Amino acid sequence: MVDLHPDRTVRVLSAGTALPGPPVDTEALAERFGMDRLWRQWVDTFIGTRTRHLALDLATGEPRESLADLATTAAGAALARAGVSAQDIDVVVLGSATPDTLMPATVNVVADRLRIDGIPTFQLQSGCSGAVQTFDVATALLAAGRHRTALVIGGDVIAKHYDVHADLRSLPPELLVNYVLFGDGAGAAVLTAEPGHDDAPIVRTVLTRLAGLDREPGQVLRWYGTADRDRADTPANEDYKAIEELVPELAAEVTDELLDDLGWERDEITYLLPPQLSVTMTEKIVKRLDLPLAEEITVVGETGNNGNALLFFQLERLLDTMSAPSRAVAVAIESSKWIRSGLALERDGGN
Amino acid sequence: MVDLHPDRTVRVLSAGTALPGPPVDTEALAERFGMDRLWRQWVDTFIGTRTRHLALDLATGEPRESLADLATTAAGAALARAGVSAQDIDVVVLGSATPDTLMPATVNVVADRLRIDGIPTFQLQSGCSGAVQTFDVATALLAAGRHRTALVIGGDVIAKHYDVHADLRSLPPELLVNYVLFGDGAGAAVLTAEPGHDDAPIVRTVLTRLAGLDREPGQVLRWYGTADRDRADTPANEDYKAIEELVPELAAEVTDELLDDLGWERDEITYLLPPQLSVTMTEKIVKRLDLPLAEEITVVGETGNNGNALLFFQLERLLDTMSAPSRAVAVAIESSKWIRSGLALERDGGN
Repeated sequence: MVDLHPDRTVRVLSAGTALPGPPVDTEALAERFGMDRLWRQWVDTFIGTRTRHLALDLATGEPRESLADLATTAAGAALARAGVSAQDIDVVVLGSATPDTLMPATVNVVADRLRIDGIPTFQLQSGCSGAVQTFDVATALLAAGRHRTALVIGGDVIAKHYDVHADLRSLPPELLVNYVLFGDGAGAAVLTAEPGHDDAPIVRTVLTRLAGLDREPGQVLRWYGTADRDRADTPANEDYKAIEELVPELAAEVTDELLDDLGWERDEITYLLPPQLSVTMTEKIVKRLDLPLAEEITVVGETGNNGNALLFFQLERLLDTMSAPSRAVAVAIESSKWIRSGLALERDGGN
Repeated sequence: MVDLHPDRTVRVLSAGTALPGPPVDTEALAERFGMDRLWRQWVDTFIGTRTRHLALDLATGEPRESLADLATTAAGAALARAGVSAQDIDVVVLGSATPDTLMPATVNVVADRLRIDGIPTFQLQSGCSGAVQTFDVATALLAAGRHRTALVIGGDVIAKHYDVHADLRSLPPELLVNYVLFGDGAGAAVLTAEPGHDDAPIVRTVLTRLAGLDREPGQVLRWYGTADRDRADTPANEDYKAIEELVPELAAEVTDELLDDLGWERDEITYLLPPQLSVTMTEKIVKRLDLPLAEEITVVGETGNNGNALLFFQLERLLDTMSAPSRAVAVAIESSKWIRSGLALERDGGN
């Protein structure tokens, strides 16, 4: 739990996002992969995600945007909105499950393109809790007094594992669903411990907790090298039964923990940024969280699940509308080895 | 630069390491790959690395140890030496360029095996500066008052890219040399902000700085997915000319920066833990750093360059011998997108 110095209040100045290409609706996927109307109805009913964005050409599989491309665009937008120049940033933290290369870390390619240099940069290897993890690390660095203004970034590009020539009709349901659930994207936010930004939301707390003890991973994503290119195993495995059961439970736990630690009541929450696995899962989780007055901010229906980017899309929308005074709670659950995570933002006073 | 609270002194309680298999000497590599005596002489003269350890069977290429295996062993050793139980650890930070999978992060697999749960865990995607980056993040978390005792881990396993069937005689020198330079391994250390450990070295400062602006990456390491398995590019590229030129320069810069920030004189440094690309490179760098009274702690001749693990091997040796009072400086340079990094440790008083 963050224990920020009273004199080192961290605020969110801005968020920015980037999506590749045009939205790909379920109809377009069905056409590309030869799936029938029944399948489209199944997607609409049981997943609910209407569109996603892909950093590749759906016809040829040719990659179009890299994670560095999307992250640079998102970060540039966040900097512009915050009115902060690249030279004012004194630490960068990026989270992704799918870096462009193992080395260099994508964060350093992005920094170079933004003309950022001479400062610490960190890249977290992370799943759906990655955006919260970037906040956790960045606010610690700011709270420790080492830095004043941080750029945090999250994003994923699944192009290397997205086989446009796959025969979807022969895939088992738990692999097939990945083509519907996931999408690509990147997001970023500017955080500062500098005074003079009283209107910007305060980061009241950030919490990430491993919850994997004696639990098999709910999600595995592999990478291959030269020597094991021919491995026959599937690049991604999901245990959707475990995910459906555990994610709502962990989301409820982390929400309770955030509220308890802050002494906030359930009916004092003005905005809820829930986990974004799919539209239907999010609906279930929101019901479970029972925050009666909270306005839900959900983007997954349009963006698809773009992993480390998602929370930044929600934040961008929150920052556009957040009234004062108000309180927001964001929750993200990682099913890979099970991490529950969340953060709480507050705007004080009126304005 | 770390600006630790005076009341949040961070100390290194212990280090632990793990190497896979028996040492593989240059003779064994020459036999396996059909290289001649001239080549062995070239390795001895221009690289100087005598042995390395590989987490695979050199005859068949079959993987033997995973990064999680090695990291768990190293972390277990560090915990035992510190007399700290897994339950006392309240944050874990692991650095690697070569995680076992993209998800789950290897840090969470290691935590599970150590029976660590319910705490934040972070995995940095990092190259040769990764060990220092884990110290940077962990000491920030401790200095921010969020946590008391951290487990930091670093390691690399290159098995997925190590092709035992490669025809080394047909490889260009800059690819061939990778088979000699690199090895596998893991290391760990226990850091604490708890009082009552006056004999343990204090982390005086940690510094990581991106130095990549307008510089092409000196090292690229790729990963492949299902959709791009057949890509013909090489999995690893190194620009050894740039590395030979820049690494000593960046090492000198970071040493000066550490000394300046601490007000330490060159002849007050008791121990030097220099970068460990190869024996010959380390020799050049040590000369350049000009710390006349510093005892050099170098391990690369026996371990090979095992990336994120190396500094922990040097630390382990340092902790075995560090007298009081004394001052140690460690330097690590990442050539991927160029990061200069270092840390300074001190034992006060006599005993």
